[in-house]
Amino acid sequence: MAGAGPASPLAGLLDYKTAKFALTRNRRVGLLHRLLQLGVLGYLLGWVLLARKGYQDTDRAPRAAVVTKLKGAAVAGAARRLWDAADYARPPQGENVIFLVTNFIATAQQAQGTCPECRGVSGCLSQFSPRAVLEFPGFEASPAVLDATCTEDADCPMGNPVDRGNGIKTGKCVMFNTTHSTCEIYGWCPVENSTLPRKPLLAEAENFTLFIKNTVHFTQFNFSKCNTLQTNDPTYFKSCLYDPFFNPSCPVFRVRDMVEAAGETFGDLALLGGSIGVRIEWDCDLDQPAARCQPQYSFSLQDRNYNFRTASYYWDSQRQLHRNLLKLYGIRFDISVHGQAGKFSIIPAAVSFGTGIAFFGAATVLCDLVLLYLDAKAEFYWKEKFEEVRTGLLGRAEAGVKFCEQIWGDFTVQT
Amino acid sequence: MAGAGPASPLAGLLDYKTAKFALTRNRRVGLLHRLLQLGVLGYLLGWVLLARKGYQDTDRAPRAAVVTKLKGAAVAGAARRLWDAADYARPPQGENVIFLVTNFIATAQQAQGTCPECRGVSGCLSQFSPRAVLEFPGFEASPAVLDATCTEDADCPMGNPVDRGNGIKTGKCVMFNTTHSTCEIYGWCPVENSTLPRKPLLAEAENFTLFIKNTVHFTQFNFSKCNTLQTNDPTYFKSCLYDPFFNPSCPVFRVRDMVEAAGETFGDLALLGGSIGVRIEWDCDLDQPAARCQPQYSFSLQDRNYNFRTASYYWDSQRQLHRNLLKLYGIRFDISVHGQAGKFSIIPAAVSFGTGIAFFGAATVLCDLVLLYLDAKAEFYWKEKFEEVRTGLLGRAEAGVKFCEQIWGDFTVQT
Amino acid sequence: MAGAGPASPLAGLLDYKTAKFALTRNRRVGLLHRLLQLGVLGYLLGWVLLARKGYQDTDRAPRAAVVTKLKGAAVAGAARRLWDAADYARPPQGENVIFLVTNFIATAQQAQGTCPECRGVSGCLSQFSPRAVLEFPGFEASPAVLDATCTEDADCPMGNPVDRGNGIKTGKCVMFNTTHSTCEIYGWCPVENSTLPRKPLLAEAENFTLFIKNTVHFTQFNFSKCNTLQTNDPTYFKSCLYDPFFNPSCPVFRVRDMVEAAGETFGDLALLGGSIGVRIEWDCDLDQPAARCQPQYSFSLQDRNYNFRTASYYWDSQRQLHRNLLKLYGIRFDISVHGQAGKFSIIPAAVSFGTGIAFFGAATVLCDLVLLYLDAKAEFYWKEKFEEVRTGLLGRAEAGVKFCEQIWGDFTVQT
Repeated sequence: MAGAGPASPLAGLLDYKTAKFALTRNRRVGLLHRLLQLGVLGYLLGWVLLARKGYQDTDRAPRAAVVTKLKGAAVAGAARRLWDAADYARPPQGENVIFLVTNFIATAQQAQGTCPECRGVSGCLSQFSPRAVLEFPGFEASPAVLDATCTEDADCPMGNPVDRGNGIKTGKCVMFNTTHSTCEIYGWCPVENSTLPRKPLLAEAENFTLFIKNTVHFTQFNFSKCNTLQTNDPTYFKSCLYDPFFNPSCPVFRVRDMVEAAGETFGDLALLGGSIGVRIEWDCDLDQPAARCQPQYSFSLQDRNYNFRTASYYWDSQRQLHRNLLKLYGIRFDISVHGQAGKFSIIPAAVSFGTGIAFFGAATVLCDLVLLYLDAKAEFYWKEKFEEVRTGLLGRAEAGVKFCEQIWGDFTVQT
Repeated sequence: MAGAGPASPLAGLLDYKTAKFALTRNRRVGLLHRLLQLGVLGYLLGWVLLARKGYQDTDRAPRAAVVTKLKGAAVAGAARRLWDAADYARPPQGENVIFLVTNFIATAQQAQGTCPECRGVSGCLSQFSPRAVLEFPGFEASPAVLDATCTEDADCPMGNPVDRGNGIKTGKCVMFNTTHSTCEIYGWCPVENSTLPRKPLLAEAENFTLFIKNTVHFTQFNFSKCNTLQTNDPTYFKSCLYDPFFNPSCPVFRVRDMVEAAGETFGDLALLGGSIGVRIEWDCDLDQPAARCQPQYSFSLQDRNYNFRTASYYWDSQRQLHRNLLKLYGIRFDISVHGQAGKFSIIPAAVSFGTGIAFFGAATVLCDLVLLYLDAKAEFYWKEKFEEVRTGLLGRAEAGVKFCEQIWGDFTVQT
Repeated sequence: MAGAGPASPLAGLLDYKTAKFALTRNRRVGLLHRLLQLGVLGYLLGWVLLARKGYQDTDRAPRAAVVTKLKGAAVAGAARRLWDAADYARPPQGENVIFLVTNFIATAQQAQGTCPECRGVSGCLSQFSPRAVLEFPGFEASPAVLDATCTEDADCPMGNPVDRGNGIKTGKCVMFNTTHSTCEIYGWCPVENSTLPRKPLLAEAENFTLFIKNTVHFTQFNFSKCNTLQTNDPTYFKSCLYDPFFNPSCPVFRVRDMVEAAGETFGDLALLGGSIGVRIEWDCDLDQPAARCQPQYSFSLQDRNYNFRTASYYWDSQRQLHRNLLKLYGIRFDISVHGQAGKFSIIPAAVSFGTGIAFFGAATVLCDLVLLYLDAKAEFYWKEKFEEVRTGLLGRAEAGVKFCEQIWGDFTVQT
């Protein structure tokens, strides 16, 4: 029947329905319930809101620009040659990977021709030295000589390349010193002398500095920051040196400090080369003043035994092509930038809050299980909680209900 | 009234309230409810926990270091010149992008001066060949000759650069062979001969190898792994070759294998150049032994017709600047590293579980809708579920309640 | 008692339990409830589904390949030399970082020896010019002269490197012009002349073009797209020029346009160099036709005062090592690719929906608080909602229940 004014359609739309609860005085279950609720509240406040800053929108993909510059000069080598940045920095552009030459083997004036595969006083034998085996573990550790040593021409089948060697065998076996013979090859001759200086040629490089200029831009918040101090003192970057405690905002790093922060000693790394990872980490809370948004630098050893060969070419007066080959050992710096910025936003705050309170429901489920199955008066509570709806002929059959069914119903209906 | 001890404030705090339910014997709705619950349970166990490993904390931004080295030597070209890594690998440093020269056009001894825009037997016409049009689709496909052909000087307005050409028009129209005329230009002369060899000059490069050393570091779990096998056999990397089935832990890749894995044939790509993407994918479950954390390699063609020009400069005896221009065609390898690592953690486990059980509530909502609106005895159930609270004068008015209102109330109140 | 068939275990399993609700006619709370529900529905539909596309699975880590090529030629400098891409583009490979030379200081034929630290008409003094101080703020702004000026030999301690200078002091103080003295150094001599041309040497570079070919591959959906228009017209890329409105699918960018889009003027940047970030953003909805998936380009200034030194080496007829040093100023283009693709998937759709409806519960909690604590008839509603379960001797004690306890119970039990 249609009632008076209050029962009009509009009024019905404004009815409010609230779930009915059965209140019990069971203290053990009540205590358990409160403890679980406290745990959930602690999780919500402590982890979601404080530790993980769940109320913030975050941008994890900043646009990062890195400009690097190696600085320093030193006189090194037997020829007392001065080395400056144009000499030892490769590539010169100063991108996020930069290589500092610390040692090298130069092979000047190579030309195409035939020559023994091995060269020098100790020749290929030097490659058996422990140091050589260390170099580029396994891969380059190059008993090229194993393939290149010979006693007669038949050991050197013509046309085969020497494994990890410098050229193509010509089919001849030649003596390269009074005791050893080696296959003759066709290739760039003379071949590279495999004897590496025992001390890094550019040991002074430990005092060189690496300047890293890094700008990050968080697109989502239109926020930019540079790792260099905003200073009006033009001599600041000239004289400063990075120190994690006393000078964390000076992005001029001494090479030795970086190597040591990566857990290595400069001398070892300079001899056979290596690769140092420099990680710049920005973790910015934009609800705080921007000045607090400062990068963290960390250094790690990525690889040992880093080297590569490069050559420059020229024609001599007889118009024959020559090249100067350099095998460069040194320290490669790999700069990577990671970052995230967070700022309060209503949407993630609501989602974090909503997800958190969903756990309160789980606490209730657990307590219901205890109340209905483990409590002494379980059956009594069961009847109170589940009020049977009788639709005529169907009767209530408490006894026939299986435990498995109760678990199911109880667990799921409430959540 | 204030009761005895049990009703004290503290005791009240420990009261436990459990929601009241109406139990119905409606089998169709009951069956539907169980099926929905089974579906949710399957989703929770199958997808969230097993497929997506929702109980793990994941680190998706590993620190990756890549060192590459091309190896191999071959005699090639009319001059029977030997090519080794220093000759064909650019840049020499071995970063994550490395280029292998397979074909080239050399233009030696260019100097600033004037010369016809076209050169060679077929001259600019060769640029009409289908092969040339293929090269760098659209962009470079360069009928430069269209702009450079002329019949009289007026066709070559002085000072204009030739579109996609090699210099600035001098205003003269000159004959470059018996049948064709072309504008004279000021620039590096003689101009590059646009005729590319019909076979790649370094066809032997297919047997060269690319060694990729990749170390990943998952900062969050302080876990590092290298893609090279930890072996004590120094000759292992010398002799091994990657094979996806028989030798997946040897990171020495034959160039032809990579090109074929990307769905190309080496000959085609070597002629006009191309770019191959090498993707290293780490998917590590750190709840498993670390040895199971192995990278997957995949190869794809990124681009065809890859080439660039580079020059080296020198002064001749008359102190005039000269350059040797090289247009290099070849295969560029772009190595990218992606990875994620997961490890059990209580927080994501709780969140995954909590989010999953929220769906049980949705199952109940759906069943309620069926019970209250689609069932034959819907009105009866409605009365049982919603127990009216009478506050004196307001009467219950079942009939006036609109369907739209019921949907709303029912849908939302229970969740 | 065990009932008939319907009460068998299987039948019990199919019982359906639905939560009991108390229906109230409180209009204020009802209205509040509806408003909150509307808000949640708006959030769910508007934000989660439409704005954030919560029903889609997303891939945020596309595999991106970038190939770049600078094009253009110009006659520049006092020597009227023609510059083409092989001259001004570094590195030549065309990777995602490419440098365009716009200005330079060349120092030809340096050899190891001794010379004054300062050179030229104004010598070291020119380094005091405002322009020099601007250069690489702070770091390089180099009153090297401060350390190199001297009045007597004692001002030049032997063996010390000159701060930010070019070599090692020999211990002598020499005059470099009629009024100033400077320390003599050992190093590459003569030293670089620090006077930069007042106008960029390659001012014509503003009309050069940068071609960017970018392919993205979304692994998760096996979807690839290239930023170049799929066209059969071979002259399209020859003649087209990018314009954000009229020609957004032509990836050929004029240098001046890019610099201006980054908010700079070409002349300023060309003089002392700079770094421009080019960001390619792909935001693809794969539920739409693939043709709608187009990249957005944006340009920003990353850094001013960008320069580096590079050298080429040669031996003269007396077999002495010489080098030609170039200090290059110019514009560096840093191309970065970001992207995401979304496609409908049942799992994220379910999760978004489920998370969203969890908020309906929060609306109910809030209304309950109003109903039970703020309404005039709060106590009456309280009794109706919480039905006491009497287990014999324990009596109900309404009066003793504290407010704090009620908040707790009410807030948590319902969710």
